[in-house]
Amino acid sequence: MREYKVTFLPDRKEVKVEEGTTLFDAAEKAEVYINSMCGGQGLCGECRLQVLSGNAKADKYAIGFFSVEEIQKGYVLACQTKVEDNLEVMVPARSRLEMEKIITEGTLAYSEPEKVSVHRTSRQPMYPFEPPVTKVYLELPPPTMKDNISDIDRITRELKKKLAFSSFEISLGCLQNLSDNLRQHQWKVTATVARHDSIGRLLQIEGGDTSEQNYGLAIDIGTTTVVVQLVHLKTGKVLGVEASHNLQARYGEDVISRMVFACTRGSLKTLNEAVVANINALTRALARENGVKLEDINCAVCAGNTTMSHFLLNLTPCSIRMEPYVPTAAIYPQILAREIGININPNGAVEIMPSVASYMGGDIVAGILTCGLADRTEVTCLIDVGTNGEIAVGNNEWIVCCSASAGPAFEGGGIKWGMHATRGAIEKIEIKDGQVTYKTISKSKPRGICGSGLIDVIYELARNRIIDQDGKFNPITSNERIVTGDGDTEFILVYPEQTETGQAVTIAETDISNLIKSKGAVFAALKSLMDYIGMSFNQLEAIYLAGGFGSSLDARKAIAIGLLPDIDLHKIHFIGNSSVAGARMALLSSAAFEAAKSISRRMTNIELSNYPPFMSEFIAALFLPHTDSKLFPSVHY
Amino acid sequence: MREYKVTFLPDRKEVKVEEGTTLFDAAEKAEVYINSMCGGQGLCGECRLQVLSGNAKADKYAIGFFSVEEIQKGYVLACQTKVEDNLEVMVPARSRLEMEKIITEGTLAYSEPEKVSVHRTSRQPMYPFEPPVTKVYLELPPPTMKDNISDIDRITRELKKKLAFSSFEISLGCLQNLSDNLRQHQWKVTATVARHDSIGRLLQIEGGDTSEQNYGLAIDIGTTTVVVQLVHLKTGKVLGVEASHNLQARYGEDVISRMVFACTRGSLKTLNEAVVANINALTRALARENGVKLEDINCAVCAGNTTMSHFLLNLTPCSIRMEPYVPTAAIYPQILAREIGININPNGAVEIMPSVASYMGGDIVAGILTCGLADRTEVTCLIDVGTNGEIAVGNNEWIVCCSASAGPAFEGGGIKWGMHATRGAIEKIEIKDGQVTYKTISKSKPRGICGSGLIDVIYELARNRIIDQDGKFNPITSNERIVTGDGDTEFILVYPEQTETGQAVTIAETDISNLIKSKGAVFAALKSLMDYIGMSFNQLEAIYLAGGFGSSLDARKAIAIGLLPDIDLHKIHFIGNSSVAGARMALLSSAAFEAAKSISRRMTNIELSNYPPFMSEFIAALFLPHTDSKLFPSVHY
Repeated sequence: MREYKVTFLPDRKEVKVEEGTTLFDAAEKAEVYINSMCGGQGLCGECRLQVLSGNAKADKYAIGFFSVEEIQKGYVLACQTKVEDNLEVMVPARSRLEMEKIITEGTLAYSEPEKVSVHRTSRQPMYPFEPPVTKVYLELPPPTMKDNISDIDRITRELKKKLAFSSFEISLGCLQNLSDNLRQHQWKVTATVARHDSIGRLLQIEGGDTSEQNYGLAIDIGTTTVVVQLVHLKTGKVLGVEASHNLQARYGEDVISRMVFACTRGSLKTLNEAVVANINALTRALARENGVKLEDINCAVCAGNTTMSHFLLNLTPCSIRMEPYVPTAAIYPQILAREIGININPNGAVEIMPSVASYMGGDIVAGILTCGLADRTEVTCLIDVGTNGEIAVGNNEWIVCCSASAGPAFEGGGIKWGMHATRGAIEKIEIKDGQVTYKTISKSKPRGICGSGLIDVIYELARNRIIDQDGKFNPITSNERIVTGDGDTEFILVYPEQTETGQAVTIAETDISNLIKSKGAVFAALKSLMDYIGMSFNQLEAIYLAGGFGSSLDARKAIAIGLLPDIDLHKIHFIGNSSVAGARMALLSSAAFEAAKSISRRMTNIELSNYPPFMSEFIAALFLPHTDSKLFPSVHY
Repeated sequence: MREYKVTFLPDRKEVKVEEGTTLFDAAEKAEVYINSMCGGQGLCGECRLQVLSGNAKADKYAIGFFSVEEIQKGYVLACQTKVEDNLEVMVPARSRLEMEKIITEGTLAYSEPEKVSVHRTSRQPMYPFEPPVTKVYLELPPPTMKDNISDIDRITRELKKKLAFSSFEISLGCLQNLSDNLRQHQWKVTATVARHDSIGRLLQIEGGDTSEQNYGLAIDIGTTTVVVQLVHLKTGKVLGVEASHNLQARYGEDVISRMVFACTRGSLKTLNEAVVANINALTRALARENGVKLEDINCAVCAGNTTMSHFLLNLTPCSIRMEPYVPTAAIYPQILAREIGININPNGAVEIMPSVASYMGGDIVAGILTCGLADRTEVTCLIDVGTNGEIAVGNNEWIVCCSASAGPAFEGGGIKWGMHATRGAIEKIEIKDGQVTYKTISKSKPRGICGSGLIDVIYELARNRIIDQDGKFNPITSNERIVTGDGDTEFILVYPEQTETGQAVTIAETDISNLIKSKGAVFAALKSLMDYIGMSFNQLEAIYLAGGFGSSLDARKAIAIGLLPDIDLHKIHFIGNSSVAGARMALLSSAAFEAAKSISRRMTNIELSNYPPFMSEFIAALFLPHTDSKLFPSVHY
């Protein structure tokens, strides 16, 4: 079998592969990570590469994704192109899975890392600081002939004085070497104990006083990004946070395509390993930065949607995907780190935030915990906009929730120049008198537009009457920035000479249509839910908006495009990544984790696909801000 | 390094070993199992072999164990002799660890295998038939949009209707593949559930109705023998029983020498592996004989003394051995078969009978369960004679117990021609008018004497005034069977021409002395315990005698030599291996296992080494039947 060399630019990463290997696989081997939404089926057009030298045939799908000019320039789909020559290949910025710093949390939750107690505002109940895994230093009386109970009974006798568990569960591993350990350390040992319902689960017994060395991880497993926080469980202090793109994205950008990948190709294990690798890499970095030993990390609380939680536990998502949408589990057992290959203390306890249903996951339960929705007597609302728009409305007595397939548009998915809220993303934009001004993350040259920027774009285009309220370019308006090609009309936001890629950053009519569908789905879901409950928007005391928009979200514009209902601006709170914040609350307080379980059991999930009014609400919402302008009295274009 | 060939007779097993290997290790490599009490330290003289051809030097210890004639005939200690030539070696019958059928249980417990309910006599309470591991067949309603709870919730919802557990503990293993499994089998599955305190522990979910295929093991891990019974947990029927010598005997015959071996040589794992190999070999044989698949064996209940239980769990026995005699654990956690390498269903539950203290083990607790001592209002007594004589006295309100180092004499240990109750053992003997008549197990040619035979021998020698009541040969009596050699006087029980080995089976004065010490220790312990309680022997409603004597035990003679107190004969019950019987009770009834835990907690252990009157009782008991003849009014020699 012949081998060829493939060089990936701009990083000049070289790799030798066998003849016939796809460029996608070659890139993976070279550790060049390329976007894909469809899992390598030639359907999404995300994995576009430009072949600069060497022979590579344009594939049969190319015509659907590239202009004739692009094909002439050597553009191909990585997943459909086989290596049959030595190649030099450019990876365009938009095809790269960026490994840079990601915005890891909103302001509400992450602003108080120094505080030991877990609380949000003074009006809400406190959860006591009592991590699910504690370390207790014990100085035991040595045995005598008058007191010669077994070693383990001597330990539990002492533990019972310090911890309020009904009983203790002892693993065989804890018993083995216990005898020598106790005697070598003159009966001074530290017990690591996890709360497992009302039982104390003895995880480890170490010699001497190691009670200071007790760390935990709060983990958000997002479809797009994985965020890990390292927390000192003795003090509650957050020591650091790291994030990276979810490596699963190589096998499909959204949840559905990954489910298809797992179910039709028997590749569950691949997705499982990808997320475990994510967590381990981030944890390793955090441990190194903070001088913490991995074996001193004794607990991890993970929050993710139901599918992500299933992938983490190596559970098939196949029945989640299809009616009647049944997950394997919604409330997950406490497991040990070694059972799923999380590289912390092998006997460390791993808790997964409970889900409610297949499309109402632990990330939303974590969000509810974070914003305190379930603790208040007033009715408030949580809206989490990701691939699905998940919405919960309720108070301390009831919670109703639903999810709508909003698509990943506000996270940049399916938008030609859309991107996540990372370096170079346009996060703010204004159009005035034909001039476009913008602000990018890290003040870099523009590479694309993230969620908050996209909200701005829609609003600004409509306000300047460049598009009509149906999202189509206004045929009357003439604007030098409007260009037509490949059967689509685009508005140039940034000219090529100002961008990082040397290509113009534009917004196309199909992009706008996708964004309107996305905001329409979220609004229609919220409207349906409020109608179901029999409440009006104004009866909501607060709306908490969570998601990966970027931190510059302008609530006024989010209302103006009809993403959010037209309520008092001060009632709207952007809480960013409420999933990791909720995971950290559970990591700092068993009571918070128990509350999360209780929340998940109390939540009534409305399946919108079974709720006929939703579809007409959705159609009515495909307008800026809405076909029923009475719903948005404050909005005037 | 040179290699030599060693051939072991009579089985002609050949093995090649490196120069300098001990004959003991060579034998092990050849799968020839040789007795050893001291663990290969040259101290016990049990591993004697006869070198028939090839050069092998008599070792420095030989002179202490062999006559000059024997040394000339090539007798050596296997553990002290290094291979430096090709050798042909005879393994004398008495040095062989026999792998034959062993008497596995007494009559009381094993006579009712057909009965489902676990009970002993009509006066005692019944334990309900409710094995610790049950299989439940479930026909689940398939999920619909109106009922789309998670797969595992669907299972536990149904299980809660059938099993009275407060909650269910789910392992990650049970969740993995659950989704496919349920759907492939049209929602008809069988759940295997173990009782874990008050929680139901889900061990396995299989497709279809497999509830018939549920088997369990009752295991007695004796220091000398390992006995395994295979039980159908659906019906309670005992399908078969197998036994073998404890393979640990290679490393030391008694508990103490094995502890020394484990602690001074870091060889805990070796002893652990030996007993696991024992159990696995017996289980494999039972499964094959009964057409049972190993993975359908879902539960094992093991009973053994505290040290044996520690070896099984790979726990060091080192602190058991020395004051203040502290085990790692007395009540053991429920573990899974795979955790200790027991080759049944890897997720099968393994329970260990709870111990009381270092020298009061789960075998005794099992014995108490078997004889019903803890269920009655009347005070009864259990005496288990093995290496330790363990004694428990009590009723349904209190139990007091103690153990005395009685030595292994009544199991044949330390007695020149002593042997276990297997084929060829003299189990009954009578001396009348100078004639010796005897009965052997399996009516084979005599190979040695087992416990019941040894009781008879002492009694008969004393009755015929061949020995005095102090156990010494009567210098006045002349008897052609009395011979003197090697500084010891022996009585010939069977002449060489009638034995299997071609050597006379004899009883030496030192043997008699050992037996008297052994019976004296047991009696003194019982007497001390009764005095401690303030009761006389006649107040005991029953004495249950357990141990490996052989089934022909004559209670009258056991009293006459002063092993048992002089009470009504009908109050004495020989119950044989009560340890395996108790393990089976626990295997058939969770309630019985819970009762065992409660028994172990209720037992007050008296450390005789800390109880001064014991030593004078012991000295007073070194006489036949006793120095205080008023204690044995019915005994007249």
